[in-house]
Amino acid sequence: MNFTYKLNLIMNFTYNISGGIILKITKPRGTRDFLFKEMKERRNAENTLREVFENYAYQEIKTPIFENLSLFTTKSGEEIVDQLYNFEDKSNREIALRPELTAPVARLYLNEMQKTAKPIKLYYFGSCFRYERTQKGRFRQFWQFGCELIGAKSPEGEAEVIAMAEDSIKKLGIENAEIHINHLGIIRGLFEHFNIDSETQETIMNLIDKGDKKLFIDSLKLGQNPLIKDIFLQDILIKFFDLTGKDEILDEIEIIINDYEKAIASLNEFKELLKYLKAFDVSNYNINLGVARGLDYYTGIVFEIYVPELGAQKQIAGGGSYNLVELFGGEAIESTGFAFGFDRLMNAIKETDEEHSMVEVYVACPLSKGNHEEIITKSFEVGQTLRRANISTEIDLSRKKFKKLLNIANKLNVKYFIIVGENDLEENSVTIKNMDTGNQELVAINNIITYIKNQIDNNNKKNKNN
Amino acid sequence: MNFTYKLNLIMNFTYNISGGIILKITKPRGTRDFLFKEMKERRNAENTLREVFENYAYQEIKTPIFENLSLFTTKSGEEIVDQLYNFEDKSNREIALRPELTAPVARLYLNEMQKTAKPIKLYYFGSCFRYERTQKGRFRQFWQFGCELIGAKSPEGEAEVIAMAEDSIKKLGIENAEIHINHLGIIRGLFEHFNIDSETQETIMNLIDKGDKKLFIDSLKLGQNPLIKDIFLQDILIKFFDLTGKDEILDEIEIIINDYEKAIASLNEFKELLKYLKAFDVSNYNINLGVARGLDYYTGIVFEIYVPELGAQKQIAGGGSYNLVELFGGEAIESTGFAFGFDRLMNAIKETDEEHSMVEVYVACPLSKGNHEEIITKSFEVGQTLRRANISTEIDLSRKKFKKLLNIANKLNVKYFIIVGENDLEENSVTIKNMDTGNQELVAINNIITYIKNQIDNNNKKNKNN
Repeated sequence: MNFTYKLNLIMNFTYNISGGIILKITKPRGTRDFLFKEMKERRNAENTLREVFENYAYQEIKTPIFENLSLFTTKSGEEIVDQLYNFEDKSNREIALRPELTAPVARLYLNEMQKTAKPIKLYYFGSCFRYERTQKGRFRQFWQFGCELIGAKSPEGEAEVIAMAEDSIKKLGIENAEIHINHLGIIRGLFEHFNIDSETQETIMNLIDKGDKKLFIDSLKLGQNPLIKDIFLQDILIKFFDLTGKDEILDEIEIIINDYEKAIASLNEFKELLKYLKAFDVSNYNINLGVARGLDYYTGIVFEIYVPELGAQKQIAGGGSYNLVELFGGEAIESTGFAFGFDRLMNAIKETDEEHSMVEVYVACPLSKGNHEEIITKSFEVGQTLRRANISTEIDLSRKKFKKLLNIANKLNVKYFIIVGENDLEENSVTIKNMDTGNQELVAINNIITYIKNQIDNNNKKNKNN
Repeated sequence: MNFTYKLNLIMNFTYNISGGIILKITKPRGTRDFLFKEMKERRNAENTLREVFENYAYQEIKTPIFENLSLFTTKSGEEIVDQLYNFEDKSNREIALRPELTAPVARLYLNEMQKTAKPIKLYYFGSCFRYERTQKGRFRQFWQFGCELIGAKSPEGEAEVIAMAEDSIKKLGIENAEIHINHLGIIRGLFEHFNIDSETQETIMNLIDKGDKKLFIDSLKLGQNPLIKDIFLQDILIKFFDLTGKDEILDEIEIIINDYEKAIASLNEFKELLKYLKAFDVSNYNINLGVARGLDYYTGIVFEIYVPELGAQKQIAGGGSYNLVELFGGEAIESTGFAFGFDRLMNAIKETDEEHSMVEVYVACPLSKGNHEEIITKSFEVGQTLRRANISTEIDLSRKKFKKLLNIANKLNVKYFIIVGENDLEENSVTIKNMDTGNQELVAINNIITYIKNQIDNNNKKNKNN
């Protein structure tokens, strides 16, 4: 690294082409700017999710970007602080940018909605923050789109939530997504039967979540102090580690756990869930005893959605049932929730080559001769009329050369190019050029809206028929 | 304050009714939770603004919630740090939650859009943060909806931006909003002519912005060290302080500043803007020489929008032309921008008593006798079919008593209550009750979607005719 370059980095200065110094301010590490095309795609996906969630009678809430730090340490322990953007505000209050939205939603419920009739169905869309090593596909500001179903009966409620997740994915056009479901009660029932202490339980769940089978087997069996001493339990856990399949594996599981009453009770609940899933018209799911969800507040059903093409970032959603409100001191009330990792979801949505046409019409006037003022004013009026009829319209404000305007209109991918010319104006008309066909027509100014709307309708019909 | 109460406050603990201790976590001071109704109203307003801005060919961008602190100190000076949420991240980088969006947008332009063809039209909607004393109507997290027009010709671009602001307000149904426009070149021309130093200029602009006329006059004329020594300039500034009116005050201003060439040149630009405003069909504006906009980076036209009923919070929007990019070391490029204070905007939108009906249909089954499983499963299927036809539908998941379900449906304000009963099911039909009229009809299950959609259409037509 040469000295000048290093100096530039330290001083945050750089030189522009003409030799002047310019202050080089960049976005913070691990954050992103979203430009037009990406932003439009994200809004489209957001609106699709919004529509699906609202069809399921969910309504939106919003909580602040930062919360009191204690909200997150209460839920996740002090260790979480290492991954947080936390700081003291100017009155020395401990504040943290939210790392996830379940705890804020539980707080909102406790503060504001305890008296609302159950079940409560709420959804949220917002950004979360974590301070971690930046790497491919991991960002320090990221978005979650999720929901909470508070106080509904399970497993019906759980089935409905999973159905909504599946509908969302279908409506977004994501193919090859896999829904993997587990009931944590099965493994917990075993732990209880074999008197496994809670610390060991947590270690095992974390190892399952990690997904490294060799490490798992070694930790379970080997060394001076193996995690599990009972050889029966060792075998069961190793079988469960990657036991995944359709309904037919239920019998297999039943045979394995047949002697353990509590595990069997959970398996029966699991079966009931699967029955309701079918009533909700969901059949394309996987039973997966390896879904551990890392967090220890889940109580029963958990599920994750994978898009295998995304590799290390394949998990696009996760959720399950828990009793979060109780954790914060509220009364026990069953909740089911899940969230889409919105950024991963966007990666899963197939990129379409379809060109986004954000602007429908461009209004220009050729300025080679005559009374410029009048035709400029008229072009503004024409543009304004179109905009107020909800037709997205750009007007040339810069009096660029006519040929340049056609270029700009082409770049904007507009469908109609309106020429407000002096001669046409005498007849109170403008020329409208269809940018796809190249056809031009003289249209009376009073008739522009009708003309354009008819053209758009005809075009839509044509596209439908193709 | 008694001891126990004080202890509760300090410990952040409180007691619930049953005597147990519950951790009481509240939202941070000065922040808000938004519940269903308010959130829906905010989304509606957001979508209206989005539609108007996109009709004007603006496209959306998004920048991170936090930026490097230097971005804001470069624009606004070190003093701004007192009003910021700023902190060091875990790698000792100086970070700040953004207090406004103009500087982040300028950074985005410099980082990513310098080569994009001009004019660039971008809009944003996002939250901003300021650490200040909490008081009525001032929040520590607040929202701005704004735009930047980069590299357009003025005053045409300025006129278009003001026209878009007016269209937005009209479409939101805000009545009595007033647009106040000024050209800062007029007063700057005077300052230059009378050789007023830039520090005094800033003091005067801040005093104008404060709006206290007595204080202004006293500061200008009185004391040992009056701000302005020249008696002519004193008189002009005092006249300008609250000089507001329609086009007719242009002559008055012209007479006052007739001897000052640069001020006259700016007045002429102002007149040209007003001419284009009329071409954009905006006529309901006020010329107001008291609009100072506090910030010293504005170069010419500035404007603010007031809703007088809102009192101290009456300003719902502000903007103007400036050269922000140059401030950050980019090349000089004229920009015009403005933002709505979204929270104030929401205060200005008249509350309607119209009940929000978020959910259209409720599906229930009476469980007094017969094969429950079958009708429950069928009710899930019926609900699912409706949801997939984009009809917002709630299904009873909790098997509550039938009478209770009617209450819940009433609270949700649904329009149709579908009863999946055993007898009807034998005929593959359900009973649909219209909650407004009380009418009930037996409808074949295959025909539910068509039936409900027809009912909704008929209802919409009826409402239109009324």
